Amino acid sequence: MKPQQNTNSQKIKVKISYDGTDFKGWQKQNSGVRTVQGCLEEALSKMLNEPVITIGSGRTDSGVHAREQFFHFSTLKNLENYKWVYALNSLTPKDIAIHGAWKAPQEFHALASCERKIYKYFIFNSPTPNAFRARYSYWAPHHRLDLKLLNNYSQTLLGTHDFKSFQTQGTEVKSTQRHIYRAEWRQIRPCWLEFTIEGNGFLKQMVRNIIGSQLDLERQRLPTQEFSRILKACRREQALGTASPEGLYLYRVQYPHFLDKKCLKI
Amino acid sequence: MKPQQNTNSQKIKVKISYDGTDFKGWQKQNSGVRTVQGCLEEALSKMLNEPVITIGSGRTDSGVHAREQFFHFSTLKNLENYKWVYALNSLTPKDIAIHGAWKAPQEFHALASCERKIYKYFIFNSPTPNAFRARYSYWAPHHRLDLKLLNNYSQTLLGTHDFKSFQTQGTEVKSTQRHIYRAEWRQIRPCWLEFTIEGNGFLKQMVRNIIGSQLDLERQRLPTQEFSRILKACRREQALGTASPEGLYLYRVQYPHFLDKKCLKI
Repeated sequence: MKPQQNTNSQKIKVKISYDGTDFKGWQKQNSGVRTVQGCLEEALSKMLNEPVITIGSGRTDSGVHAREQFFHFSTLKNLENYKWVYALNSLTPKDIAIHGAWKAPQEFHALASCERKIYKYFIFNSPTPNAFRARYSYWAPHHRLDLKLLNNYSQTLLGTHDFKSFQTQGTEVKSTQRHIYRAEWRQIRPCWLEFTIEGNGFLKQMVRNIIGSQLDLERQRLPTQEFSRILKACRREQALGTASPEGLYLYRVQYPHFLDKKCLKI
Repeated sequence: MKPQQNTNSQKIKVKISYDGTDFKGWQKQNSGVRTVQGCLEEALSKMLNEPVITIGSGRTDSGVHAREQFFHFSTLKNLENYKWVYALNSLTPKDIAIHGAWKAPQEFHALASCERKIYKYFIFNSPTPNAFRARYSYWAPHHRLDLKLLNNYSQTLLGTHDFKSFQTQGTEVKSTQRHIYRAEWRQIRPCWLEFTIEGNGFLKQMVRNIIGSQLDLERQRLPTQEFSRILKACRREQALGTASPEGLYLYRVQYPHFLDKKCLKI
Protein backbone atom coordinates (compact mmCIF):
# COMPACT_ATOMS: atom_id res chain seq x y z
CA MET A 1 0.00 0.00 0.00
CA LYS A 2 1.46 3.33 -1.04
CA PRO A 3 1.47 5.94 1.76
CA GLN A 4 -0.70 9.00 1.23
CA GLN A 5 1.18 11.72 -0.58
CA ASN A 6 1.02 15.36 0.33
CA THR A 7 2.50 17.12 -2.67
CA ASN A 8 3.03 20.30 -0.68
CA SER A 9 5.02 18.79 2.17
CA GLN A 10 8.56 17.54 1.96
CA LYS A 11 9.83 14.56 3.91
CA ILE A 12 13.27 15.09 5.48
CA LYS A 13 15.48 12.23 6.69
CA VAL A 14 18.09 13.17 9.30
CA LYS A 15 21.11 11.26 10.61
CA ILE A 16 22.13 11.88 14.21
CA SER A 17 24.11 10.40 17.09
CA TYR A 18 23.75 10.93 20.81
CA ASP A 19 25.32 10.23 24.19
CA GLY A 20 22.33 8.69 25.95
CA THR A 21 23.65 9.10 29.52
CA ASP A 22 21.70 12.21 30.42
CA PHE A 23 18.52 11.42 28.43
CA LYS A 24 15.48 9.49 29.60
CA GLY A 25 15.62 7.63 26.30
CA TRP A 26 14.55 8.58 22.78
CA GLN A 27 10.80 8.89 23.21
CA LYS A 28 9.23 12.25 24.05
CA GLN A 29 7.54 12.33 27.45
CA ASN A 30 5.86 14.94 29.58
CA SER A 31 7.56 18.31 29.66
CA GLY A 32 10.39 18.40 32.18
CA VAL A 33 11.67 14.97 31.16
CA ARG A 34 14.80 15.28 29.02
CA THR A 35 14.49 13.01 25.97
CA VAL A 36 16.28 12.97 22.61
CA GLN A 37 13.05 13.31 20.61
CA GLY A 38 11.88 16.10 22.91
CA CYS A 39 15.11 18.10 22.42
CA LEU A 40 15.05 17.57 18.64
CA GLU A 41 11.40 18.58 18.20
CA GLU A 42 11.93 21.67 20.34
CA ALA A 43 14.96 22.74 18.28
CA LEU A 44 13.29 21.99 14.92
CA SER A 45 10.05 23.75 15.88
CA LYS A 46 12.01 26.81 16.95
CA MET A 47 14.08 26.82 13.78
CA LEU A 48 11.20 26.26 11.35
CA ASN A 49 8.71 28.28 13.35
CA GLU A 50 6.09 25.53 13.04
CA PRO A 51 5.26 22.45 15.14
CA VAL A 52 7.46 19.51 14.09
CA ILE A 53 6.73 15.83 14.75
CA THR A 54 9.68 13.45 14.39
CA ILE A 55 9.59 9.68 13.80
CA GLY A 56 12.71 7.75 14.79
CA SER A 57 13.99 4.42 13.44
CA GLY A 58 13.17 3.05 16.88
CA ARG A 59 13.26 3.94 20.54
CA THR A 60 16.36 3.68 22.65
CA ASP A 61 16.01 3.24 26.43
CA SER A 62 17.12 5.64 29.11
CA GLY A 63 20.92 5.75 29.13
CA VAL A 64 21.40 3.90 25.82
CA HIS A 65 23.57 5.63 23.20
CA ALA A 66 23.20 5.94 19.44
CA ARG A 67 26.25 6.10 17.22
CA GLU A 68 23.84 6.18 14.24
CA GLN A 69 20.17 6.97 14.45
CA PHE A 70 17.77 8.24 11.79
CA PHE A 71 14.50 10.10 12.04
CA HIS A 72 12.18 11.82 9.58
CA PHE A 73 9.83 14.75 9.72
CA SER A 74 7.62 16.54 7.24
CA THR A 75 7.60 20.25 6.55
CA LEU A 76 6.04 22.72 4.13
CA LYS A 77 9.17 24.88 4.33
CA ASN A 78 11.80 24.68 1.63
CA LEU A 79 14.96 23.42 3.34
CA GLU A 80 17.22 23.15 0.32
CA ASN A 81 20.10 25.54 -0.25
CA TYR A 82 20.15 26.55 3.38
CA LYS A 83 22.69 25.50 5.98
CA TRP A 84 20.04 24.46 8.50
CA VAL A 85 21.96 21.37 9.65
CA TYR A 86 24.61 23.72 11.07
CA ALA A 87 21.89 25.88 12.59
CA LEU A 88 20.25 22.81 14.12
CA ASN A 89 23.53 21.73 15.73
CA SER A 90 23.70 25.09 17.47
CA LEU A 91 20.11 24.69 18.76
CA THR A 92 20.52 21.14 20.11
CA PRO A 93 22.49 20.26 23.26
CA LYS A 94 26.10 19.05 23.10
CA ASP A 95 25.14 15.40 23.65
CA ILE A 96 23.21 15.28 20.35
CA ALA A 97 25.04 15.66 17.02
CA ILE A 98 23.27 16.16 13.68
CA HIS A 99 25.38 14.60 10.91
CA GLY A 100 23.37 15.09 7.74
CA ALA A 101 19.98 15.49 6.09
CA TRP A 102 18.32 14.22 2.95
CA LYS A 103 15.18 15.01 0.94
CA ALA A 104 13.40 11.66 1.22
CA PRO A 105 10.64 10.22 -1.00
CA GLN A 106 7.13 10.17 0.53
CA GLU A 107 7.30 6.37 0.75
CA PHE A 108 10.25 6.61 3.21
CA HIS A 109 9.38 6.03 6.86
CA ALA A 110 12.23 6.06 9.44
CA LEU A 111 10.61 3.24 11.47
CA ALA A 112 8.62 1.19 8.93
CA SER A 113 11.26 1.25 6.18
CA CYS A 114 14.06 0.10 8.49
CA GLU A 115 15.44 -3.21 7.25
CA ARG A 116 18.26 -4.07 9.65
CA LYS A 117 19.89 -2.72 12.78
CA ILE A 118 23.20 -3.32 14.47
CA TYR A 119 23.64 -2.85 18.22
CA LYS A 120 26.98 -3.01 20.01
CA TYR A 121 27.69 -3.49 23.71
CA PHE A 122 31.02 -2.59 25.28
CA ILE A 123 32.46 -4.13 28.44
CA PHE A 124 35.55 -2.90 30.27
CA ASN A 125 36.85 -6.14 31.78
CA SER A 126 39.54 -4.85 34.14
CA PRO A 127 40.05 -4.91 37.93
CA THR A 128 40.46 -1.09 37.96
CA PRO A 129 37.83 1.19 36.41
CA ASN A 130 38.22 3.66 33.52
CA ALA A 131 37.04 7.14 34.48
CA PHE A 132 36.67 8.28 30.86
CA ARG A 133 34.67 5.28 29.66
CA ALA A 134 32.37 4.93 32.70
CA ARG A 135 29.52 6.55 30.75
CA TYR A 136 30.16 4.45 27.66
CA SER A 137 30.78 0.90 28.85
CA TYR A 138 29.87 -1.63 31.50
CA TRP A 139 32.65 -2.25 34.00
CA ALA A 140 33.12 -5.96 34.81
CA PRO A 141 35.94 -6.09 37.40
CA HIS A 142 35.55 -9.49 39.03
CA HIS A 143 36.94 -12.06 36.60
CA ARG A 144 38.15 -12.38 33.03
CA LEU A 145 35.05 -13.11 30.95
CA ASP A 146 35.07 -16.34 28.95
CA LEU A 147 34.57 -15.13 25.36
CA LYS A 148 34.39 -18.66 24.00
CA LEU A 149 31.48 -19.53 26.29
CA LEU A 150 29.72 -16.22 25.54
CA ASN A 151 30.14 -16.89 21.82
CA ASN A 152 28.69 -20.37 22.23
CA TYR A 153 25.58 -18.85 23.83
CA SER A 154 25.41 -16.25 21.04
CA GLN A 155 25.52 -18.86 18.26
CA THR A 156 22.11 -20.14 19.35
CA LEU A 157 20.59 -16.72 18.59
CA LEU A 158 21.31 -16.89 14.84
CA GLY A 159 18.36 -17.32 12.49
CA THR A 160 14.66 -16.77 13.05
CA HIS A 161 13.36 -17.30 16.59
CA ASP A 162 10.58 -16.18 18.89
CA PHE A 163 12.45 -13.87 21.28
CA LYS A 164 9.65 -13.55 23.85
CA SER A 165 12.01 -14.71 26.62
CA PHE A 166 14.11 -11.60 26.08
CA GLN A 167 11.30 -9.07 25.72
CA THR A 168 10.50 -6.61 28.50
CA GLN A 169 6.76 -5.99 28.74
CA GLY A 170 5.38 -2.54 28.00
CA THR A 171 5.22 -2.16 24.23
CA GLU A 172 2.66 -4.06 22.18
CA VAL A 173 4.05 -5.79 19.12
CA LYS A 174 2.31 -7.93 16.49
CA SER A 175 4.96 -10.60 16.55
CA THR A 176 7.84 -11.47 18.87
CA GLN A 177 9.63 -13.30 16.05
CA ARG A 178 12.85 -11.73 14.78
CA HIS A 179 15.73 -12.77 12.55
CA ILE A 180 19.31 -12.45 13.84
CA TYR A 181 22.06 -12.28 11.19
CA ARG A 182 25.03 -11.90 13.50
CA ALA A 183 25.75 -12.18 17.24
CA GLU A 184 29.36 -12.29 18.34
CA TRP A 185 31.72 -11.30 21.11
CA ARG A 186 35.28 -10.25 20.45
CA GLN A 187 38.14 -8.65 22.29
CA ILE A 188 38.94 -5.36 20.58
CA ARG A 189 41.78 -4.20 22.87
CA PRO A 190 43.29 -5.48 26.12
CA CYS A 191 40.45 -5.41 28.70
CA TRP A 192 37.89 -4.30 26.09
CA LEU A 193 35.10 -6.62 24.92
CA GLU A 194 32.58 -5.84 22.22
CA PHE A 195 29.32 -7.67 21.50
CA THR A 196 27.79 -7.09 18.06
CA ILE A 197 24.27 -8.14 17.20
CA GLU A 198 22.59 -7.56 13.84
CA GLY A 199 18.92 -8.29 13.23
CA ASN A 200 15.87 -7.30 11.23
CA GLY A 201 14.40 -5.79 14.41
CA PHE A 202 14.60 -5.94 18.19
CA LEU A 203 11.99 -6.22 20.94
CA LYS A 204 11.93 -3.91 23.96
CA GLN A 205 15.24 -4.29 25.89
CA MET A 206 15.94 -7.46 23.90
CA VAL A 207 19.68 -6.81 23.51
CA ARG A 208 20.18 -5.95 27.20
CA ASN A 209 18.13 -8.98 28.27
CA ILE A 210 20.17 -11.28 26.03
CA ILE A 211 23.45 -9.90 27.38
CA GLY A 212 22.20 -9.95 30.97
CA SER A 213 21.29 -13.64 30.72
CA GLN A 214 24.57 -14.49 29.01
CA LEU A 215 26.63 -12.74 31.70
CA ASP A 216 24.65 -14.45 34.48
CA LEU A 217 25.16 -17.89 32.89
CA GLU A 218 28.85 -17.20 32.22
CA ARG A 219 29.38 -16.27 35.87
CA GLN A 220 28.02 -19.69 36.85
CA ARG A 221 29.89 -21.38 33.95
CA LEU A 222 26.69 -23.00 32.75
CA PRO A 223 26.65 -24.83 29.40
CA THR A 224 25.23 -23.52 26.12
CA GLN A 225 22.15 -25.73 26.46
CA GLU A 226 21.09 -23.59 29.43
CA PHE A 227 20.98 -20.49 27.21
CA SER A 228 19.15 -22.42 24.44
CA ARG A 229 16.60 -23.56 27.00
CA ILE A 230 15.86 -19.93 28.00
CA LEU A 231 15.47 -18.89 24.33
CA LYS A 232 13.19 -21.82 23.51
CA ALA A 233 11.03 -21.32 26.64
CA CYS A 234 9.50 -18.15 25.10
CA ARG A 235 8.73 -16.89 28.60
CA ARG A 236 10.31 -13.80 30.11
CA GLU A 237 10.39 -15.41 33.58
CA GLN A 238 12.96 -17.88 32.25
CA ALA A 239 15.53 -15.25 31.39
CA LEU A 240 17.92 -13.71 33.88
CA GLY A 241 19.29 -10.18 34.43
CA THR A 242 19.15 -7.11 32.21
CA ALA A 243 22.54 -5.63 31.31
CA SER A 244 22.92 -1.99 32.33
CA PRO A 245 22.29 0.58 29.58
CA GLU A 246 25.59 2.50 29.58
CA GLY A 247 27.40 -0.12 27.47
CA LEU A 248 24.78 -0.25 24.71
CA TYR A 249 24.91 1.58 21.40
CA LEU A 250 22.48 1.62 18.51
CA TYR A 251 25.33 1.32 16.02
CA ARG A 252 23.91 1.11 12.49
CA VAL A 253 20.45 1.52 10.98
CA GLN A 254 19.97 0.17 7.49
CA TYR A 255 17.29 1.03 4.91
CA PRO A 256 16.73 -0.70 1.55
CA HIS A 257 19.17 0.43 -1.15
CA PHE A 258 16.39 1.51 -3.50
CA LEU A 259 15.17 3.95 -0.82
CA ASP A 260 18.67 5.23 0.00
CA LYS A 261 19.13 5.98 -3.69
CA LYS A 262 15.97 8.10 -3.74
CA CYS A 263 17.22 10.24 -0.84
CA LEU A 264 19.01 13.41 -1.93
CA LYS A 265 21.58 14.95 0.41
CA ILE A 266 20.79 18.56 1.25
CA MET B 1 66.53 20.22 54.02
CA LYS B 2 65.23 16.82 54.94
CA PRO B 3 61.51 16.75 55.77
CA GLN B 4 60.57 15.83 59.32
CA GLN B 5 60.16 12.10 59.69
CA ASN B 6 57.40 10.45 61.64
CA THR B 7 58.57 6.90 62.10
CA ASN B 8 55.08 5.73 62.96
CA SER B 9 53.31 7.12 59.94
CA GLN B 10 53.55 5.73 56.43
CA LYS B 11 53.46 7.90 53.31
CA ILE B 12 51.29 6.48 50.52
CA LYS B 13 51.54 7.59 46.89
CA VAL B 14 48.45 6.98 44.76
CA LYS B 15 47.94 7.14 40.98
CA ILE B 16 44.52 8.18 39.73
CA SER B 17 42.68 9.55 36.68
CA TYR B 18 39.47 11.50 36.47
CA ASP B 19 36.89 12.88 34.09
CA GLY B 20 36.88 16.53 35.22
CA THR B 21 33.54 17.50 33.64
CA ASP B 22 31.40 17.24 36.74
CA PHE B 23 34.01 18.42 39.27
CA LYS B 24 34.71 21.98 40.38
CA GLY B 25 38.39 21.19 39.95
CA TRP B 26 40.86 19.29 42.11
CA GLN B 27 41.00 21.48 45.19
CA LYS B 28 38.70 20.82 48.13
CA GLN B 29 36.22 23.60 48.80
CA ASN B 30 33.32 24.18 51.14
CA SER B 31 31.06 21.22 51.63
CA GLY B 32 28.47 20.93 48.89
CA VAL B 33 31.02 21.71 46.16
CA ARG B 34 32.01 18.55 44.29
CA THR B 35 35.80 18.39 43.92
CA VAL B 36 38.20 15.53 43.21
CA GLN B 37 40.18 16.07 46.41
CA GLY B 38 36.95 16.32 48.41
CA CYS B 39 35.64 13.00 47.05
CA LEU B 40 38.99 11.26 47.63
CA GLU B 41 39.41 12.49 51.19
CA GLU B 42 35.84 11.52 52.03
CA ALA B 43 36.35 7.99 50.65
CA LEU B 44 39.77 7.52 52.30
CA SER B 45 38.57 8.85 55.67
CA LYS B 46 35.61 6.48 55.56
CA MET B 47 37.80 3.53 54.60
CA LEU B 48 40.60 4.17 57.14
CA ASN B 49 38.26 5.47 59.82
CA GLU B 50 40.54 8.46 60.46
CA PRO B 51 40.76 11.96 58.94
CA VAL B 52 42.89 11.90 55.77
CA ILE B 53 44.57 14.91 54.15
CA THR B 54 45.70 14.46 50.53
CA ILE B 55 48.32 16.46 48.64
CA GLY B 56 48.07 16.38 44.83
CA SER B 57 50.83 16.90 42.26
CA GLY B 58 48.99 20.11 41.41
CA ARG B 59 45.53 21.55 41.04
CA THR B 60 43.44 21.13 37.94
CA ASP B 61 40.72 23.68 37.15
CA SER B 62 37.01 23.09 37.04
CA GLY B 63 36.24 20.87 34.04
CA VAL B 64 39.87 19.87 33.35
CA HIS B 65 40.59 16.13 33.15
CA ALA B 66 43.51 14.06 34.43
CA ARG B 67 44.67 10.98 32.57
CA GLU B 68 47.43 10.66 35.18
CA GLN B 69 47.48 12.41 38.52
CA PHE B 70 49.31 11.53 41.73
CA PHE B 71 48.64 12.41 45.32
CA HIS B 72 50.04 11.34 48.67
CA PHE B 73 48.69 11.00 52.17
CA SER B 74 50.04 9.80 55.49
CA THR B 75 48.48 7.19 57.71
CA LEU B 76 49.28 5.27 60.87
CA LYS B 77 47.36 2.24 59.51
CA ASN B 78 49.18 -0.61 57.87
CA LEU B 79 47.95 -0.72 54.28
CA GLU B 80 50.12 -3.53 52.98
CA ASN B 81 48.72 -6.92 52.12
CA TYR B 82 45.22 -5.56 51.86
CA LYS B 83 43.28 -4.93 48.67
CA TRP B 84 42.30 -1.39 49.68
CA VAL B 85 42.80 0.02 46.15
CA TYR B 86 39.84 -2.13 45.03
CA ALA B 87 37.88 -1.03 48.08
CA LEU B 88 38.70 2.61 47.36
CA ASN B 89 37.44 2.29 43.77
CA SER B 90 34.11 1.12 45.14
CA LEU B 91 33.94 4.13 47.50
CA THR B 92 34.81 6.78 44.90
CA PRO B 93 32.42 7.96 42.16
CA LYS B 94 32.60 6.53 38.63
CA ASP B 95 34.41 9.57 37.23
CA ILE B 96 37.45 8.91 39.43
CA ALA B 97 39.60 5.79 38.90
CA ILE B 98 42.30 4.64 41.33
CA HIS B 99 45.03 2.85 39.36
CA GLY B 100 47.64 1.94 41.93
CA ALA B 101 49.35 2.72 45.23
CA TRP B 102 52.91 2.71 46.53
CA LYS B 103 54.62 2.91 49.92
CA ALA B 104 56.63 6.10 49.42
CA PRO B 105 59.71 7.31 51.32
CA GLN B 106 59.15 10.21 53.76
CA GLU B 107 61.10 12.54 51.46
CA PHE B 108 58.48 12.06 48.70
CA HIS B 109 56.01 14.93 48.29
CA ALA B 110 53.42 14.71 45.45
CA LEU B 111 53.67 18.46 44.73
CA ALA B 112 57.22 19.43 45.72
CA SER B 113 58.94 16.35 44.26
CA CYS B 114 57.25 16.72 40.87
CA GLU B 115 59.89 17.24 38.19
CA ARG B 116 57.94 17.50 34.93
CA LYS B 117 54.38 17.49 33.69
CA ILE B 118 52.77 16.90 30.34
CA TYR B 119 49.43 18.44 29.44
CA LYS B 120 47.47 17.63 26.29
CA TYR B 121 44.64 19.56 24.66
CA PHE B 122 42.29 17.99 22.13
CA ILE B 123 40.36 19.87 19.45
CA PHE B 124 37.64 18.37 17.26
CA ASN B 125 38.03 20.42 14.09
CA SER B 126 34.93 19.43 12.13
CA PRO B 127 31.85 21.29 10.88
CA THR B 128 29.56 18.78 12.67
CA PRO B 129 29.98 18.03 16.39
CA ASN B 130 30.82 14.73 18.09
CA ALA B 131 28.26 13.83 20.76
CA PHE B 132 30.58 11.33 22.47
CA ARG B 133 33.62 13.60 22.66
CA ALA B 134 31.80 16.82 23.65
CA ARG B 135 32.94 16.38 27.25
CA TYR B 136 36.50 15.56 26.24
CA SER B 137 37.48 18.00 23.51
CA TYR B 138 36.95 21.53 22.26
CA TRP B 139 34.80 21.71 19.14
CA ALA B 140 36.17 24.13 16.52
CA PRO B 141 33.68 24.04 13.63
CA HIS B 142 34.38 27.23 11.68
CA HIS B 143 37.53 26.61 9.66
CA ARG B 144 40.36 24.15 9.29
CA LEU B 145 42.99 25.20 11.81
CA ASP B 146 46.44 26.02 10.44
CA LEU B 147 48.72 23.59 12.28
CA LYS B 148 51.84 25.06 10.74
CA LEU B 149 51.04 28.51 12.09
CA LEU B 150 50.09 27.10 15.51
CA ASN B 151 53.37 25.19 15.62
CA ASN B 152 55.28 28.35 14.74
CA TYR B 153 53.69 30.10 17.73
CA SER B 154 54.48 27.08 19.92
CA GLN B 155 58.17 27.05 18.98
CA THR B 156 58.62 30.37 20.75
CA LEU B 157 57.57 28.76 24.05
CA LEU B 158 60.54 26.38 24.20
CA GLY B 159 63.20 26.98 26.83
CA THR B 160 63.09 29.11 29.98
CA HIS B 161 60.78 32.13 29.95
CA ASP B 162 58.79 34.30 32.30
CA PHE B 163 55.22 33.18 31.57
CA LYS B 164 53.50 36.02 33.43
CA SER B 165 51.50 36.91 30.29
CA PHE B 166 49.80 33.53 30.47
CA GLN B 167 49.15 33.41 34.21
CA THR B 168 45.67 33.92 35.61
CA GLN B 169 45.77 35.81 38.91
CA GLY B 170 44.65 34.12 42.09
CA THR B 171 47.49 31.89 43.24
CA GLU B 172 50.67 33.35 44.68
CA VAL B 173 53.88 31.89 43.27
CA LYS B 174 57.50 32.73 44.05
CA SER B 175 58.50 32.88 40.43
CA THR B 176 56.62 33.05 37.13
CA GLN B 177 59.61 31.56 35.30
CA ARG B 178 59.16 28.06 33.86
CA HIS B 179 61.02 25.80 31.46
CA ILE B 180 59.18 24.27 28.48
CA TYR B 181 60.70 21.13 26.96
CA ARG B 182 58.11 20.48 24.28
CA ALA B 183 55.15 22.32 22.77
CA GLU B 184 53.66 20.94 19.57
CA TRP B 185 50.47 20.52 17.63
CA ARG B 186 49.74 17.48 15.51
CA GLN B 187 46.85 15.92 13.69
CA ILE B 188 46.19 12.52 15.26
CA ARG B 189 43.18 11.49 13.15
CA PRO B 190 41.03 13.20 10.51
CA CYS B 191 39.45 16.23 12.27
CA TRP B 192 41.37 15.56 15.51
CA LEU B 193 44.12 17.89 16.70
CA GLU B 194 46.31 17.37 19.74
CA PHE B 195 48.51 19.92 21.48
CA THR B 196 51.21 18.53 23.78
CA ILE B 197 53.13 20.71 26.20
CA GLU B 198 55.79 19.47 28.60
CA GLY B 199 57.35 21.66 31.26
CA ASN B 200 58.94 21.70 34.70
CA GLY B 201 55.80 23.38 36.02
CA PHE B 202 52.83 25.46 34.96
CA LEU B 203 51.23 28.64 36.30
CA LYS B 204 47.51 28.95 36.97
CA GLN B 205 45.59 28.38 33.70
CA MET B 206 48.86 28.77 31.78
CA VAL B 207 48.13 26.03 29.24
CA ARG B 208 44.60 27.27 28.53
CA ASN B 209 45.81 30.86 28.25
CA ILE B 210 48.58 29.86 25.81
CA ILE B 211 46.12 27.90 23.65
CA GLY B 212 43.48 30.64 23.85
CA SER B 213 45.96 33.23 22.60
CA GLN B 214 47.24 30.93 19.85
CA LEU B 215 43.71 30.21 18.59
CA ASP B 216 42.80 33.90 18.62
CA LEU B 217 45.93 34.82 16.63
CA GLU B 218 45.42 31.91 14.22
CA ARG B 219 41.88 33.08 13.52
CA GLN B 220 43.28 36.47 12.48
CA ARG B 221 46.20 34.82 10.66
CA LEU B 222 48.69 36.96 12.57
CA PRO B 223 52.42 36.21 12.31
CA THR B 224 54.56 34.39 14.89
CA GLN B 225 56.09 37.68 16.06
CA GLU B 226 52.70 38.64 17.45
CA PHE B 227 52.73 35.59 19.75
CA SER B 228 56.38 36.27 20.75
CA ARG B 229 55.43 39.84 21.58
CA ILE B 230 52.70 38.64 23.99
CA LEU B 231 55.10 36.19 25.68
CA LYS B 232 57.84 38.82 26.06
CA ALA B 233 55.45 41.47 27.38
CA CYS B 234 55.16 39.58 30.69
CA ARG B 235 51.77 41.20 31.25
CA ARG B 236 48.50 39.26 31.38
CA GLU B 237 46.62 42.12 29.68
CA GLN B 238 48.63 41.42 26.53
CA ALA B 239 47.36 37.86 26.13
CA LEU B 240 44.04 36.97 24.53
CA GLY B 241 41.35 34.36 25.30
CA THR B 242 41.42 31.35 27.63
CA ALA B 243 40.69 28.01 25.93
CA SER B 244 37.73 26.17 27.43
CA PRO B 245 38.59 23.44 29.97
CA GLU B 246 36.90 20.40 28.39
CA GLY B 247 39.75 19.80 25.93
CA LEU B 248 42.52 19.84 28.57
CA TYR B 249 44.12 16.79 30.20
CA LEU B 250 46.84 16.56 32.80
CA TYR B 251 48.51 13.73 30.90
CA ARG B 252 51.72 12.71 32.68
CA VAL B 253 53.31 13.60 36.01
CA GLN B 254 56.98 12.75 36.40
CA TYR B 255 59.02 12.32 39.57
CA PRO B 256 62.80 11.83 39.78
CA HIS B 257 63.88 8.25 39.05
CA PHE B 258 65.66 7.90 42.40
CA LEU B 259 62.34 8.61 44.16
CA ASP B 260 60.33 6.31 41.87
CA LYS B 261 62.79 3.55 42.72
CA LYS B 262 62.18 4.04 46.46
CA CYS B 263 58.40 3.63 46.02
CA LEU B 264 57.15 0.09 46.59
CA LYS B 265 53.96 -1.02 44.89
CA ILE B 266 51.36 -2.28 47.34
